[in-house]
Amino acid sequence: DFAKIDHHRKIRQGMSEVVFCEGKTEQQVLKIFERMIEKGEVNIIGTRASKELYEYLKENLKEDIIYYEAARIVCAKRVEIKKNPKGHVAVVSAGTADLKVAEEAAVILEILGNNVKRIYDVGVAGIHRLFSHLDEIQSANAVVAVAGMEGALASVVAGLVSRPVIAVPTSVGYGANFKGLSALLTMLNSCANGVAVVNIDNGFGAAVVAHMINSLANGNL
Amino acid sequence: DFAKIDHHRKIRQGMSEVVFCEGKTEQQVLKIFERMIEKGEVNIIGTRASKELYEYLKENLKEDIIYYEAARIVCAKRVEIKKNPKGHVAVVSAGTADLKVAEEAAVILEILGNNVKRIYDVGVAGIHRLFSHLDEIQSANAVVAVAGMEGALASVVAGLVSRPVIAVPTSVGYGANFKGLSALLTMLNSCANGVAVVNIDNGFGAAVVAHMINSLANGNL
Amino acid sequence: DFAKIDHHRKIRQGMSEVVFCEGKTEQQVLKIFERMIEKGEVNIIGTRASKELYEYLKENLKEDIIYYEAARIVCAKRVEIKKNPKGHVAVVSAGTADLKVAEEAAVILEILGNNVKRIYDVGVAGIHRLFSHLDEIQSANAVVAVAGMEGALASVVAGLVSRPVIAVPTSVGYGANFKGLSALLTMLNSCANGVAVVNIDNGFGAAVVAHMINSLANGNL
Amino acid sequence: DFAKIDHHRKIRQGMSEVVFCEGKTEQQVLKIFERMIEKGEVNIIGTRASKELYEYLKENLKEDIIYYEAARIVCAKRVEIKKNPKGHVAVVSAGTADLKVAEEAAVILEILGNNVKRIYDVGVAGIHRLFSHLDEIQSANAVVAVAGMEGALASVVAGLVSRPVIAVPTSVGYGANFKGLSALLTMLNSCANGVAVVNIDNGFGAAVVAHMINSLANGNL
Amino acid sequence: DFAKIDHHRKIRQGMSEVVFCEGKTEQQVLKIFERMIEKGEVNIIGTRASKELYEYLKENLKEDIIYYEAARIVCAKRVEIKKNPKGHVAVVSAGTADLKVAEEAAVILEILGNNVKRIYDVGVAGIHRLFSHLDEIQSANAVVAVAGMEGALASVVAGLVSRPVIAVPTSVGYGANFKGLSALLTMLNSCANGVAVVNIDNGFGAAVVAHMINSLANGNL
Amino acid sequence: DFAKIDHHRKIRQGMSEVVFCEGKTEQQVLKIFERMIEKGEVNIIGTRASKELYEYLKENLKEDIIYYEAARIVCAKRVEIKKNPKGHVAVVSAGTADLKVAEEAAVILEILGNNVKRIYDVGVAGIHRLFSHLDEIQSANAVVAVAGMEGALASVVAGLVSRPVIAVPTSVGYGANFKGLSALLTMLNSCANGVAVVNIDNGFGAAVVAHMINSLANGNL
Amino acid sequence: DFAKIDHHRKIRQGMSEVVFCEGKTEQQVLKIFERMIEKGEVNIIGTRASKELYEYLKENLKEDIIYYEAARIVCAKRVEIKKNPKGHVAVVSAGTADLKVAEEAAVILEILGNNVKRIYDVGVAGIHRLFSHLDEIQSANAVVAVAGMEGALASVVAGLVSRPVIAVPTSVGYGANFKGLSALLTMLNSCANGVAVVNIDNGFGAAVVAHMINSLANGNL
Amino acid sequence: DFAKIDHHRKIRQGMSEVVFCEGKTEQQVLKIFERMIEKGEVNIIGTRASKELYEYLKENLKEDIIYYEAARIVCAKRVEIKKNPKGHVAVVSAGTADLKVAEEAAVILEILGNNVKRIYDVGVAGIHRLFSHLDEIQSANAVVAVAGMEGALASVVAGLVSRPVIAVPTSVGYGANFKGLSALLTMLNSCANGVAVVNIDNGFGAAVVAHMINSLANGNL
Ligand SMILES: Nc1ncnc2c1ncn2[C@@H]1O[C@H](COP(=O)(O)O)[C@@H](O)[C@H]1O
Ligand SMILES: Nc1ncnc2c1ncn2[C@@H]1O[C@H](COP(=O)(O)O)[C@@H](O)[C@H]1O
Ligand SMILES: Nc1ncnc2c1ncn2[C@@H]1O[C@H](COP(=O)(O)O)[C@@H](O)[C@H]1O
Ligand SMILES: Nc1ncnc2c1ncn2[C@@H]1O[C@H](COP(=O)(O)O)[C@@H](O)[C@H]1O
Ligand SMILES: [Mg+2]
Ligand SMILES: [Mg+2]
Ligand SMILES: [Mg+2]
Ligand SMILES: [Mg+2]
Ligand SMILES: [Mg+2]
Ligand SMILES: [Mg+2]
Ligand SMILES: [Mg+2]
Ligand SMILES: [Mg+2]
Repeated sequence: DFAKIDHHRKIRQGMSEVVFCEGKTEQQVLKIFERMIEKGEVNIIGTRASKELYEYLKENLKEDIIYYEAARIVCAKRVEIKKNPKGHVAVVSAGTADLKVAEEAAVILEILGNNVKRIYDVGVAGIHRLFSHLDEIQSANAVVAVAGMEGALASVVAGLVSRPVIAVPTSVGYGANFKGLSALLTMLNSCANGVAVVNIDNGFGAAVVAHMINSLANGNL
Repeated sequence: DFAKIDHHRKIRQGMSEVVFCEGKTEQQVLKIFERMIEKGEVNIIGTRASKELYEYLKENLKEDIIYYEAARIVCAKRVEIKKNPKGHVAVVSAGTADLKVAEEAAVILEILGNNVKRIYDVGVAGIHRLFSHLDEIQSANAVVAVAGMEGALASVVAGLVSRPVIAVPTSVGYGANFKGLSALLTMLNSCANGVAVVNIDNGFGAAVVAHMINSLANGNL
Repeated sequence: DFAKIDHHRKIRQGMSEVVFCEGKTEQQVLKIFERMIEKGEVNIIGTRASKELYEYLKENLKEDIIYYEAARIVCAKRVEIKKNPKGHVAVVSAGTADLKVAEEAAVILEILGNNVKRIYDVGVAGIHRLFSHLDEIQSANAVVAVAGMEGALASVVAGLVSRPVIAVPTSVGYGANFKGLSALLTMLNSCANGVAVVNIDNGFGAAVVAHMINSLANGNL
Repeated sequence: DFAKIDHHRKIRQGMSEVVFCEGKTEQQVLKIFERMIEKGEVNIIGTRASKELYEYLKENLKEDIIYYEAARIVCAKRVEIKKNPKGHVAVVSAGTADLKVAEEAAVILEILGNNVKRIYDVGVAGIHRLFSHLDEIQSANAVVAVAGMEGALASVVAGLVSRPVIAVPTSVGYGANFKGLSALLTMLNSCANGVAVVNIDNGFGAAVVAHMINSLANGNL
Repeated sequence: DFAKIDHHRKIRQGMSEVVFCEGKTEQQVLKIFERMIEKGEVNIIGTRASKELYEYLKENLKEDIIYYEAARIVCAKRVEIKKNPKGHVAVVSAGTADLKVAEEAAVILEILGNNVKRIYDVGVAGIHRLFSHLDEIQSANAVVAVAGMEGALASVVAGLVSRPVIAVPTSVGYGANFKGLSALLTMLNSCANGVAVVNIDNGFGAAVVAHMINSLANGNL
Repeated sequence: DFAKIDHHRKIRQGMSEVVFCEGKTEQQVLKIFERMIEKGEVNIIGTRASKELYEYLKENLKEDIIYYEAARIVCAKRVEIKKNPKGHVAVVSAGTADLKVAEEAAVILEILGNNVKRIYDVGVAGIHRLFSHLDEIQSANAVVAVAGMEGALASVVAGLVSRPVIAVPTSVGYGANFKGLSALLTMLNSCANGVAVVNIDNGFGAAVVAHMINSLANGNL
Repeated sequence: DFAKIDHHRKIRQGMSEVVFCEGKTEQQVLKIFERMIEKGEVNIIGTRASKELYEYLKENLKEDIIYYEAARIVCAKRVEIKKNPKGHVAVVSAGTADLKVAEEAAVILEILGNNVKRIYDVGVAGIHRLFSHLDEIQSANAVVAVAGMEGALASVVAGLVSRPVIAVPTSVGYGANFKGLSALLTMLNSCANGVAVVNIDNGFGAAVVAHMINSLANGNL
Repeated sequence: DFAKIDHHRKIRQGMSEVVFCEGKTEQQVLKIFERMIEKGEVNIIGTRASKELYEYLKENLKEDIIYYEAARIVCAKRVEIKKNPKGHVAVVSAGTADLKVAEEAAVILEILGNNVKRIYDVGVAGIHRLFSHLDEIQSANAVVAVAGMEGALASVVAGLVSRPVIAVPTSVGYGANFKGLSALLTMLNSCANGVAVVNIDNGFGAAVVAHMINSLANGNL
């Protein structure tokens, strides 16, 4: 028995187990989705899902399934759930190549019921691009800041807002970037207040934390 | 001019600049405190303050100053500020040696106006100790989880609650601990949802994030 | 002469040399198996064997050969050897993606004559899954604990049992996991008593140690 | 309350919590010893205890306390416990400078009731020194192999015995030794069967695993 | 003969050898200074000079010697040399604790004949502090940017100017800062154009490069 | 909107944004080039461009586009811009395999209007090859020094010239080279004066800094 | 001009430049071979040569060319040169997978005129295999010791001989082997006298050093 | 019994065991020296010996003992042994701060009976200093090259000689030097032929290898 699905998680954590598809066979993912559907779960999410996996699932799963291509996310039994109507989460990213990770965060946030504002390609090399969106960032209940290379965006943003900044280092870069280590260390050493960090490329993890914060701000959870 | 104090920070971030005392001379810290007092700031905080520094400040500063020894924190012009009355923040720690970092978080949280519940020495080697405090942890608006060595506590706690867990790796340990690297990597790779991480031994940083979350949950900020 | 097979190992160590197939050509593995068969060895094992290698050996070897696909193990001249009848070894794993490594350990243990109980996908994110199998774990003569990502499972298990826990970090994860480094450091720094660690993804090595322990508990070896 | 002593550990794990003294104040260690004595625990052990700490405890504790200087261990309420009479554990070390770690392992093993044979300074640079003690090593129920610098001793020993080798890398060395990393990696990558590894300088941890194995071989535990 | 002073360097490189005092005995530094004076060199500089070393040299050297305390620099036979009259070099630093390194750069630049503008404690946590000095930075012929912790200052500055930015990571910080590694990687991975980096804490090296650039801009060298 | 092109950069930095093509889709690069052409920008450069990308752009872009194959650079709307007529920049490389990076630097420098002298394959293993080109190197306004493996070239060159040396470590090498780390550390620790370093394989970045220096020496910028 | 062949090297170093083929195009290698032949060089060697490269050269080069497949070496204008008749060099390797590196060393040694004794697959897991070849190892003028995984072979061999041991770590292994780092550190930290180390997988480099030593022992060079 | 002296080593390796004094108590070193003297050994060497240790030994040992202060070496029962009369070993060092390591090599070489030429402070920043000693370097039977910081000296020297270069990286430097890692990697990745490397600061190890080579060149050993 290769998987013991944590059906109890929704009760404990307010959301079902999310399937990390990388490193699982198509058959394993299908089986897990089927068992979750059987148990009556909704908004069953798979992250790191290739287009091929999506097509395999569409073919073989009895239920409808949606694919968010830029975010590499599949979602079955998609329903509107209790919304967080007050305010929004801002997802800010530094460069074009960070798109995949930023979209992973943004789509997860939306499925979980949050309003999202996307502010992409505003890295510090041309800092005026960031300042022209300051309003949407400062008014958010939480900010997800996505950046590769030197990852300086998170510190600059955190210095300008009074809400938590969840920083996501990405593996975008080369050489002394060491697959994201550079951005990771930058974010952990931020001299600005209010930054907490998740794993390299972990848009999903940042979205969950931001969703929890936004839910608290909405009096939910 | 060695310091440009960010007097504007209170407006931007809801709290004054906090002085990181390590690596500054006693004279520099004194000067910074004096200038902040002049500007009318209150609850002026210095972290990583040795007992010697505290005594120097007590002697030379015109204002009262308090020392939180276990937390290595000094505070001048201590006043009650707008409280976050609803709920509390839980500060959970794994071992006795993590005390300094946990107290840094707890004291900062209290000065910023949060109710704090301390649950110390509940590391996973004897996991029943954690379970016997589950209520206080699950009912918190945010959890600060402090652990050295392998830092497994953060994952276990996060798997049991629906609120954000701010994880603080500590440098407690030896050998392949590499001064906290081990606990840091553990926390960044948490398989549980809802964990975000701050720098090794950064109790202060975790407290600020948890305070922001608790304030949102209280409708403040 | 590319290989000096250690035919004496069975006498010294109670088990024949096991062939690590990765990095060897099909011809080299075949030659080694043939020479071991000539010398009268039984239960000749190859680890890290691809399906292609298995098929090549089946075609070219004069003897029957078995393939354990999930474990990536081939075995020629499979016979029942002296069993360890008293008790069992528990193989515990954290997630679905750790299956390959867990199965490598489990199959090696079985070929060497041990009863094995498999308890898979019980990672600490949903710790109740572990507790519902506590009996099988606590009654084992030795536990093999397999986990990637943050690898916290080994510490939690070791805190609950009085027998040796052989911990196997896996390379499952991404980003700051650094191909298993994260789980490796976690396990080496365990705050729980009774944990010893083998190389990343080394299910084979853990099985050998657990087999030696179980044999001692059975009065063998 | 800085410490929640795990009084239940003896039941779960067959031995009381052992106090890691490094990083605790003398007062904290004293308090923990007093509370354990109150609860009726015996053979209360403190590791990494300086001579100063020992003298402080001797002065202030109402009970007798013993100091094992080379091992840096204190022990209060020392009593003979259920012995493992059959066979012994061999503690093998590579060089003179590994003495502290080897003695930590040996003394812990003796307090826990095991017969210990010490075979010190038999590193691979003069491998005949090892061979002249082969009997005592091959007849042991478990071997603790302690080595710094390149740590090759563990592989050589493991290639010669049929029982588990618990390898302890030490921080002895300089330069590219990187405080024990070199020996640690050597031991994790052992090409010999039957090696499991504990943290750098963790003589205590190796002793506990070896004790568990020897107990199983004696039908105890 | 412990030192072969490179008296030819002035001809090759336009400046005499500078003595790195750390790791040399007081006697060695004295001897080197004496021999350089004999050869008629002027503006003989020692970096990383402690106050004790300065006092020893003052006592024993026949020539006047100046101490720049914040910069930890000694200078013998101080004379005005050919100035770079057009324009200036800006030395920008992130925090109070970066002072030592920033001053090392600034003093070296001044001794070598450059106008220097110091703009200290303008790190990105309060980015308005930087913007209020933009004029002096944008009009410089070269910028030396000194920052520890996450070192984001260099990228932000480089995005705003059209002249070379010589970035100096400092070892200021703790934990995942890894003694300056974090700031070093940030600066090497800068997404802004025109950044080149020197070693951690190497204010001296940055000053030499900036001096060469300013000299070229002045038509000298 | 995946890209916010920094059209203002030419004003701030004297050169347009350069497109880093790696990690962008062909469609994304095309779109960016089209939008820059619309805005009237010239000499629009893409780095890390594969031959396939070049052919795609040639097909789909309305403007002429040039491909510099060895440098992996595409350039649209190529025009002569204000030249730096006085002097040149020397691009020096250690081995044949460093060609790609050296050419990236040389071509960027030429497009930006600099005279370039290429001196390739003059690594320190046969140091006479370097000495026979000393004139061209010593007379340059700036030197770009490109080297992989141990990267010693930068130090040797810097010891011989009075102008800034921009050092580019390359990922050429194997084993303990760790993908360029070895050359990077060498260059950062140079005992010669006047070396500043850019990221591994970052020929582009070095070219920009050298261009800025050469422009200053020409009285431009 | 992509290559400045060091034709002078034979005079300076007693052997022609050897071509490292990895990372060069087939055309580049061909051109270099042609130019060396033109200059009258003999025994022109290319290392890291794939079978494809060999076939391309055979087709296009006017001279005969030999391929040593296991060693991945091509050699043009192969002639017997001045031999080192007295004694031999021993090439010792730990496992089957180290063959490629060991053969690189052995073939280079033979082309350079040395007698070579190959002693392969004698790793420390079965140390009797090494002892049964002790004569050939102890009588060598120099030993090349090739090993991956934990690389303990070099220390054990060096402890048994009075001649220099040139140790070659290989990238054979997985997990905490970190592509040869483990064996490299082992060899650098050898507790035995007389070990010097070359880069990971650098059979060529070891052969050159061993050849120089053997030549000295033969009174040549 | 803390030490098993390898009295057989002289027979196996031509030289007695050398005592590494760091990390041993004064009593332990004394005991070891006494036992070696008893056995009739001569030229008993202790490395890494502080002046205090030397004085302790002088006081307590019945035999004469010599102290080489710059080399931190003690030697008891100093006698002339079989010399290597033909030729010499060159010890070359880069900077003043490398003196300790260079002297360790030079003194060991002399005690073992080799002629030594010292050529110190000839680092590549002023490469003419090296060239003016080329004769003594090129005529040596072996070269020991000692360098810290970027360690480029070894490559440059090896490119100029036809004999083996034993490279010793030193921990001299700061920042990205990482305690000698930088020089170590440089030397391992040398693009010049004939370099083999020992551990950081291991002057002793280099001396032994160079002594073995010089002995072979003298027909001894
Ligand atoms: N999966 C595995 N992981 C680690 N070691 C293994 C594995 N399979 C076999 N081995 C061991 O690796 C060695 C085989 O080395 P070789 O001579 O290269 O076949 C033997 O000592 C085996 O016991
Ligand atoms: N020398 C040692 N090395 C590693 N762990 C130890 C050592 N001594 C005691 N321990 C363990 O460390 C834990 C003590 O943690 P603490 O609560 O900080 O006293 C206990 O679980 C002990 O079993
Ligand atoms: N603070 C410094 N950081 C880096 N290099 C320096 C510093 N001060 C002097 N140097 C250089 O270090 C070399 C001095 O080396 P030494 O022969 O050890 O005095 C000279 O080339 C100096 O130009
Ligand atoms: N080869 C290169 N290496 C480093 N940075 C580059 C390179 N080519 C372009 N850039 C810079 O990378 C940034 C482009 O980022 P993006 O928004 O992802 O296109 C711009 O600031 C460029 O100036
Ligand atoms: Mg962009
Ligand atoms: Mg405790
Ligand atoms: Mg699962
Ligand atoms: Mg010894
Ligand atoms: Mg400040
Ligand atoms: Mg070349
Ligand atoms: Mg083998
Ligand atoms: Mg010098």
